[in-house]
Amino acid sequence: MTYCVGLCLEEGLVFLADTRTNAGVDQVGTFRKMALFQKEGDRFFALMSAGNLAITQAVKEILLQGNLLNGNNLWNATNTHEAAVVVGDAIKQVYDRDFKALQKAGIDFNCNLIFGGQVQGEKPRLFNIYSAGNFIEATPETCYFQIGESKYGKPILDRVVNFKTPLNLATKCALISMDSTLNSNISVGLPLDLFVYERDQFKSDKVVTIDETNPYFSMIHEVWGEKLRNAFMDIPEPNWNGSRRGKTIISTAKRLGPVPIHRAKLKSGQNKKTK
Amino acid sequence: MTYCVGLCLEEGLVFLADTRTNAGVDQVGTFRKMALFQKEGDRFFALMSAGNLAITQAVKEILLQGNLLNGNNLWNATNTHEAAVVVGDAIKQVYDRDFKALQKAGIDFNCNLIFGGQVQGEKPRLFNIYSAGNFIEATPETCYFQIGESKYGKPILDRVVNFKTPLNLATKCALISMDSTLNSNISVGLPLDLFVYERDQFKSDKVVTIDETNPYFSMIHEVWGEKLRNAFMDIPEPNWNGSRRGKTIISTAKRLGPVPIHRAKLKSGQNKKTK
Repeated sequence: MTYCVGLCLEEGLVFLADTRTNAGVDQVGTFRKMALFQKEGDRFFALMSAGNLAITQAVKEILLQGNLLNGNNLWNATNTHEAAVVVGDAIKQVYDRDFKALQKAGIDFNCNLIFGGQVQGEKPRLFNIYSAGNFIEATPETCYFQIGESKYGKPILDRVVNFKTPLNLATKCALISMDSTLNSNISVGLPLDLFVYERDQFKSDKVVTIDETNPYFSMIHEVWGEKLRNAFMDIPEPNWNGSRRGKTIISTAKRLGPVPIHRAKLKSGQNKKTK
Repeated sequence: MTYCVGLCLEEGLVFLADTRTNAGVDQVGTFRKMALFQKEGDRFFALMSAGNLAITQAVKEILLQGNLLNGNNLWNATNTHEAAVVVGDAIKQVYDRDFKALQKAGIDFNCNLIFGGQVQGEKPRLFNIYSAGNFIEATPETCYFQIGESKYGKPILDRVVNFKTPLNLATKCALISMDSTLNSNISVGLPLDLFVYERDQFKSDKVVTIDETNPYFSMIHEVWGEKLRNAFMDIPEPNWNGSRRGKTIISTAKRLGPVPIHRAKLKSGQNKKTK
């Protein structure tokens, strides 16, 4: 599997992808799921992919070749939305080529992409592009997308990040979200590709590949678990005996009675015995 | 959907279930997913269910009726493992009755249970019972099971709980795990049924139904988010400029070079222009 997260914030964009792929547990590999496209001073795009690796590599190849799809490619698209249409069209081209054969083999056409960036004259934008080539765009209300094994790392994003979050803080959050996923699911693995895009830069100062030797990520991996355990220990335990110490957990719910307890039916003879 | 978590620890067992069911987003209901079975002084069992509600209710009905399945029911099983076989046999009975009709309707036979408890003379035991009626048992190395929407609430369990964790602390952890799930997935909802079983008690002192008015759960809901944000803010941000402040994130990975940046190919004319 895969875990990728992309954030679209006031100050810019954050892209983080793992690199583990697998076809069953006995065929595990390392493949890049992030691709970067730059025309300095004019545009910068990042693409992250989940799903069938043969499909996502084929899509990436079409984009790299720069062939025109309905007259456009990533280099001449007038804005990021138009560039997302190009990516969607690349998916449709792979679909047309491979779908029938995949269907015969009983394999889903599975392709889920996060694509974003900035074109001169526009703000940074972020899209989640589906298997059919259609897509949705992140907004200030919902400013991040996840693909792949998204659930483990969602709670921390939901609790910490919003559109106004500074870029470096959001980067930390993305890395913690990834660390939680790595800890709970072995189908997601190091190294990671991280790209932080500062609005209006049209270049890539902050691109780094992170493995177990990375000082910052190692710190997160060690310290976050510890901080989490400390935060956990800081919360009082449930109070079952009605004493004043701590909040009581004994309380009647408004709409629902207690769970019924089903008791063994004793035979009349047994009933007598116990009298 | 559903989220249920069951823990089997040195001191006893913890069972926590939500009560939201849905068949599509426009058919959301409240149904109990926990059932308790007691023969005082002799045995206590708890059952939690995820999957198709018609199937899991049918299984529960068979268990409540107490009919013998291959000679056994929950009341005469000699140990918890044998009781788990009874539960598995109840699933098989529902399968025999309904599978063909479900198949015709294109509906999976989907049933996933957590079942546990204690019979006099044995330690507490916990099982995860599958649709086929087969099951696995929790051990000191893997002391919890989750069913339903399990991923959101897994990281905190993985980080905090082990077999030696005191019962009340594990209860707190289960509630935090549930709170994370409730926050990130609307298919899981209040009220919750909580049952904490202390080893060798064979009764149910600690059974409570929790809704938004429960003082302890409300405190968890408010305070955990805050503690998590504080823990998050406590971790230094990535250092990109190589200064001494904080751990640097700029570091070369051992096995993998940086992500390549694909640059726009300029036509020779353009190249000349930029010279």
